[in-house]
Amino acid sequence: MSRFLREKYMSMEPYTPGEQPQMKDLIKLNTNENPYPPSPKVISAILEGNTGDLLRYPDPEAKELVDAVAEYYGVSPKNVAVGNGSDEILAFVYMAFGEKVYFPSISYGFYPVFAETFMCDFEPIPLDDELKIVPDDYIGLDGTIILANPNAPTGMTLDPGAIEDIVKTNADHLVVIDEAYADFGTQSSIPLTEKYDNVLVVQTLSKSRSLAGMRIGLAIGPEEVIEDINKMKFSFNPYNLDRLAIRAGAAAIKDDEYFKKTRDMVIETRGWFTEKMRELGFTVLESKANFVFCKPDKISGTEYFEELRKRAVVVRHWDKDPIRDYVRITIGRDEDMQRLIEVTEEILCEKVK
Amino acid sequence: MSRFLREKYMSMEPYTPGEQPQMKDLIKLNTNENPYPPSPKVISAILEGNTGDLLRYPDPEAKELVDAVAEYYGVSPKNVAVGNGSDEILAFVYMAFGEKVYFPSISYGFYPVFAETFMCDFEPIPLDDELKIVPDDYIGLDGTIILANPNAPTGMTLDPGAIEDIVKTNADHLVVIDEAYADFGTQSSIPLTEKYDNVLVVQTLSKSRSLAGMRIGLAIGPEEVIEDINKMKFSFNPYNLDRLAIRAGAAAIKDDEYFKKTRDMVIETRGWFTEKMRELGFTVLESKANFVFCKPDKISGTEYFEELRKRAVVVRHWDKDPIRDYVRITIGRDEDMQRLIEVTEEILCEKVK
Repeated sequence: MSRFLREKYMSMEPYTPGEQPQMKDLIKLNTNENPYPPSPKVISAILEGNTGDLLRYPDPEAKELVDAVAEYYGVSPKNVAVGNGSDEILAFVYMAFGEKVYFPSISYGFYPVFAETFMCDFEPIPLDDELKIVPDDYIGLDGTIILANPNAPTGMTLDPGAIEDIVKTNADHLVVIDEAYADFGTQSSIPLTEKYDNVLVVQTLSKSRSLAGMRIGLAIGPEEVIEDINKMKFSFNPYNLDRLAIRAGAAAIKDDEYFKKTRDMVIETRGWFTEKMRELGFTVLESKANFVFCKPDKISGTEYFEELRKRAVVVRHWDKDPIRDYVRITIGRDEDMQRLIEVTEEILCEKVK
Repeated sequence: MSRFLREKYMSMEPYTPGEQPQMKDLIKLNTNENPYPPSPKVISAILEGNTGDLLRYPDPEAKELVDAVAEYYGVSPKNVAVGNGSDEILAFVYMAFGEKVYFPSISYGFYPVFAETFMCDFEPIPLDDELKIVPDDYIGLDGTIILANPNAPTGMTLDPGAIEDIVKTNADHLVVIDEAYADFGTQSSIPLTEKYDNVLVVQTLSKSRSLAGMRIGLAIGPEEVIEDINKMKFSFNPYNLDRLAIRAGAAAIKDDEYFKKTRDMVIETRGWFTEKMRELGFTVLESKANFVFCKPDKISGTEYFEELRKRAVVVRHWDKDPIRDYVRITIGRDEDMQRLIEVTEEILCEKVK
């Protein structure tokens, strides 16, 4: 820390991204990336597009991408904002609307960090004993509500009716639904954004569109809320998406067939993998995301995480209550999950001896 | 504006980027882009690099780019931060160090916007009658100082000794030198960052490296100041540079030969163009940037700007004191500047009639 840092940031704790380990023959299942590459049309858009124009600033409105998203979801371009990953969109949300913020105590680890960054008064709301969000706890609050649906790292979803009740009973406050993982089997709340003026849906192309490496996030919501998000962007970094990201994002959104194919592959793998893990004695929460949150029955979560790591299988573990006993496993390719199961059998076998 | 926006942002005025007009046969000299394409090695790095890895998050430390910059400038990687354009770096600077900020009243138009965005107390310091920064006005101030060198939109530089005096007499405050345009003939203040712990240099690859479309900014400074900037980044958007930007940026920094060649071409064009404009009766400030700031003697700045625009030549004009009579003209290719001169002769000729 330098002696010039503003006092208010002295105690701020930055977010810790999931590690990007550099091991040989690593099976990397720790940051919820898609195991399949981006659509061939995305690659063509990058490789066959004009590169001479990289000398020019990108379009600060990112019209090509905004229009593609609007068309895909059947909304007006005025209902769409785009950002440098959904993290940046969420940052703008906290900045613009974060006077007071509520979110689940166990959820995306960046939520409390954003709150500190933007000096928001915030209150994490505990999950129930089954690690579920309790919708009743969000009825009639006095601040902005941020809900990941499905929630991370549990993968469990909220009932659409429950979300609508939260929106209706918080008419004076914005309800933000973070749908980073919704494409893998959760009903989107986008229809609510057309019915109510206090709902915003945030999505990312990092997971279901295999573009974590290109940093593209979206927000869909009422025109005035989108205007406010863009006001933050134009007061912070107007050219936040580079030319190749705009191009790649638009191509990804347009290739719906590829998206559905790879999404279905992930869902299918999640299905058999969940079953198999349960057979091995794991408690596996009902996931609608591209990861599962699970707990071994014979060893601790910490031990399981460490033993996997020794065998070059990296998953994510949080050494804190009440999720210390669980690990979060990203759904990879069939062969990756097969390998994880073999390794798990090996670990459990050694422990029984 | 939505009814959810935080009160403190209600009156904030976002930055207005230079327009990106869509005219046929346009000569675009309004946003200080480089007229030459990025290095062929940058294009190869994008086109021949692995695209399969776009499914993975980029390296949040952007090591490949940080290392390239450190090697190029002969500093440690710990002295380098990178961002999504120098705008994002500047945003982090204001956020981290902006309790109170001083900058010239005529300078980069984003400086006061950042101050509003991050709730900084700020004081613009007037230029002298010749539109020069008066170094004495920056001696012994009580806040962070932001100086563009060369200054925008004048293109005039500060004497290195004057900068060192400012740094020395403000030992308790950070002095930030924004060198967006320094590559075109201004002595860099990077050596000062090794001598003093209160100087930070900010640069961009948008101008001298022809990569406006890829959004890459740098900061070079004392390790603790760099740590603070990265603390802001990791509390806001850790994956701010996508994989292709990191790759392109590193390749651009490494191709010094191409950089020098295109830079020299811009400098040469600036030389003859300045002379020719003076012959046409313009006052042209002594520019060390890739643009010139100039004033016609027979018509107003506003009229000149508008007449150029009618003829599909777009430059930048600010309708405010004391620079209303000037226009800022980006240095393009020889043929662009030749065309601008022809058009200018035409405009002046019509006015004389």
